[in-house]
Amino acid sequence: MEFEEMWSDRLKSLKGNAIREIFKLLANPNVVSFAGGFPTLGLLPKKEISAIANEILTGEDAEKILQYGGTEGYSPLLESGLNYAKRFGVQGEIKNTLVISGGQQGIDLMFKAFINKGDVVLVENPTYLACLHILKTYEGVAVGVDSDEDGINIEDLENKIKTYRPKIFYVVADFSNPTGKTLSLEKRKAICEITAKYGVIVIEDNPYGEIRFSGEKLPSIKSFDKTGNVVYVTSFSKTIAPGLRTGIAVGDERIIRKMTIGKQAVDVHTSNLSQAIVDLYLRRGLLQPHLKEIIPVYKSKKEAMYGAIQKYMPLDRVKFTNPDGGLFIWGEFFDKSVDLDKCFMDCVTKTDTAYVSGSSFFAKEGITNCLRLNYSNASIEQIENGIKKLGNYFKENL
Amino acid sequence: MEFEEMWSDRLKSLKGNAIREIFKLLANPNVVSFAGGFPTLGLLPKKEISAIANEILTGEDAEKILQYGGTEGYSPLLESGLNYAKRFGVQGEIKNTLVISGGQQGIDLMFKAFINKGDVVLVENPTYLACLHILKTYEGVAVGVDSDEDGINIEDLENKIKTYRPKIFYVVADFSNPTGKTLSLEKRKAICEITAKYGVIVIEDNPYGEIRFSGEKLPSIKSFDKTGNVVYVTSFSKTIAPGLRTGIAVGDERIIRKMTIGKQAVDVHTSNLSQAIVDLYLRRGLLQPHLKEIIPVYKSKKEAMYGAIQKYMPLDRVKFTNPDGGLFIWGEFFDKSVDLDKCFMDCVTKTDTAYVSGSSFFAKEGITNCLRLNYSNASIEQIENGIKKLGNYFKENL
Repeated sequence: MEFEEMWSDRLKSLKGNAIREIFKLLANPNVVSFAGGFPTLGLLPKKEISAIANEILTGEDAEKILQYGGTEGYSPLLESGLNYAKRFGVQGEIKNTLVISGGQQGIDLMFKAFINKGDVVLVENPTYLACLHILKTYEGVAVGVDSDEDGINIEDLENKIKTYRPKIFYVVADFSNPTGKTLSLEKRKAICEITAKYGVIVIEDNPYGEIRFSGEKLPSIKSFDKTGNVVYVTSFSKTIAPGLRTGIAVGDERIIRKMTIGKQAVDVHTSNLSQAIVDLYLRRGLLQPHLKEIIPVYKSKKEAMYGAIQKYMPLDRVKFTNPDGGLFIWGEFFDKSVDLDKCFMDCVTKTDTAYVSGSSFFAKEGITNCLRLNYSNASIEQIENGIKKLGNYFKENL
Repeated sequence: MEFEEMWSDRLKSLKGNAIREIFKLLANPNVVSFAGGFPTLGLLPKKEISAIANEILTGEDAEKILQYGGTEGYSPLLESGLNYAKRFGVQGEIKNTLVISGGQQGIDLMFKAFINKGDVVLVENPTYLACLHILKTYEGVAVGVDSDEDGINIEDLENKIKTYRPKIFYVVADFSNPTGKTLSLEKRKAICEITAKYGVIVIEDNPYGEIRFSGEKLPSIKSFDKTGNVVYVTSFSKTIAPGLRTGIAVGDERIIRKMTIGKQAVDVHTSNLSQAIVDLYLRRGLLQPHLKEIIPVYKSKKEAMYGAIQKYMPLDRVKFTNPDGGLFIWGEFFDKSVDLDKCFMDCVTKTDTAYVSGSSFFAKEGITNCLRLNYSNASIEQIENGIKKLGNYFKENL
């Protein structure tokens, strides 16, 4: 049978998420990949999770965990997850809280609740590519907002709000993916004020906030929310383990309710075992010592990569960010005609080193002079060698 | 802030899934509930799952399990899950297979891939209410097909296909939810032929097929599929544990690919720990002995309920199905003016016993003379007492 004429409009021409497609190309174990966004292997707390899982499944609530649960989430995790969000100044009660199957589901459920075909979502330029991918599945329109060194340009945000009348503004305040930039305190407050003034809903996505290795911790945008227009989404993928697919959304009760109705239709509820593991992990206070263990590793990897960039990259032609946390460094060639999409396969073949071309991170198509480099998933030695090879390749070929 | 004007069309007026809403009303532990569709507590294989989880999380692949995985699914489970599907005659390879976060996600991803606003999906009359709920989130239109004792009326199916030109036909062949009916072998073949002839895609949902306690096992509709128009969806919720949220879809490679692109946007991938547990459970051959243990219990509960119905229900006014498997018995009052929606709260209050009104299971609104009774989640004693109370209530009030 032929399906070509039958696909829905939303998926008809949608290609796979660019990064997840790259992963398949990188099956070759000799390739050093700076393409992913995986937490460092070897740092996932398997002993603690193993002990907790064992306790849960041999404990008196084991059957409850294996049975169906409520869509809203496992009650203990609603409590401990909310407390976790409060670490960034998020205010809320249980009724404001929803367990999600990874932070990304928070974006999906928000778009499900709000976005009709043609509705505009403002995003940072560049932004998290999964956000753009998800938005396409709702036939929404992404419009990019200019970005300064300290994130979103507030003036451009207000202009774009006036011009495009967006329903939603999506933003990562701490160590954005892909740029690694952090929004200043003033800008967080300004975002809250301006969006409230114009009745724009904010999705504040905070998957990386705990992975800070320099600079001062800042309160979330949500912490300044007086009108209920900010929905805070966080994930345990970078702090505990991505394979568990568990996160938390906190927002206005009515929005959380709509997201819950959406989630009923999507996956009924998040895996109870994942939820119970994350709950006990948080409750036992295991997160703080774990962060103390992993942050210095991320810091040293970032420093290794930033150092290698200074040594090997053609810095007269490309500039890189130097993030205070998170997993990514962002590079931008001054010459906009540089095409990092086009040379990707050639580069991987010749250098055995992979980056992600920046083009997938922009609302607008055709921006090919940027790249994202991940430092969490390679060793210091691989980082040094890989950046050297990439730098040489760029010098010779671009 | 006010959100009323901002909700998406798809969720604007959508209420919560009726059954999941009832669960909240039934928090009172004195209420005997025939409303759910939960596997029997006490029969979930917690010892085996606990041992397997421990093995996985202390084994050499523990970190791989805690790390991000592929959207398609955990490779070993793609293999063992496909083998599981083959128990019902399903043919396919790994490229035809996708791991889903519970069987319901299979329906969601299929509608995401195919359904535009206004597109028609044919369903059995009555059908699985989550299917109707999910369809609403895609603004599709459900049209009911008449049903005989042995399921779907084939003539009406063909007529409705000609009249409504549906993209998809959704059907549960074994022990349908809510009626408990099973499709005859001839009808399975006929469905395959007719849908292929008219180019209609079939979602064959088989969550209950393994829970057969009488009659002969039948091959799936998918087993007769020659053109690739049938997508087979199954779940481990009723056979292993619903809390793990894991299932399998098998279909044409192009459809599986579209579902995968949809799933990338929805939850990235299913919990790896759930996937690895289900995989080892299947690989170790634990399913067969487990089914041997649970099927007699389901049988005895069904017989207790069917027996109590014969004793206590006003059978001159209502008829019930007598299923060969699954979790549900369906009742239909001959008088169409009987309103089981309206009397629900009164009945629960007076009898401490809950059913689900059938109205939520129909594509058309306003059919209030039917009810669904679940027998898996109550003890034999509760079944006897509950049906007695319900029967008396119906005799006195309807």
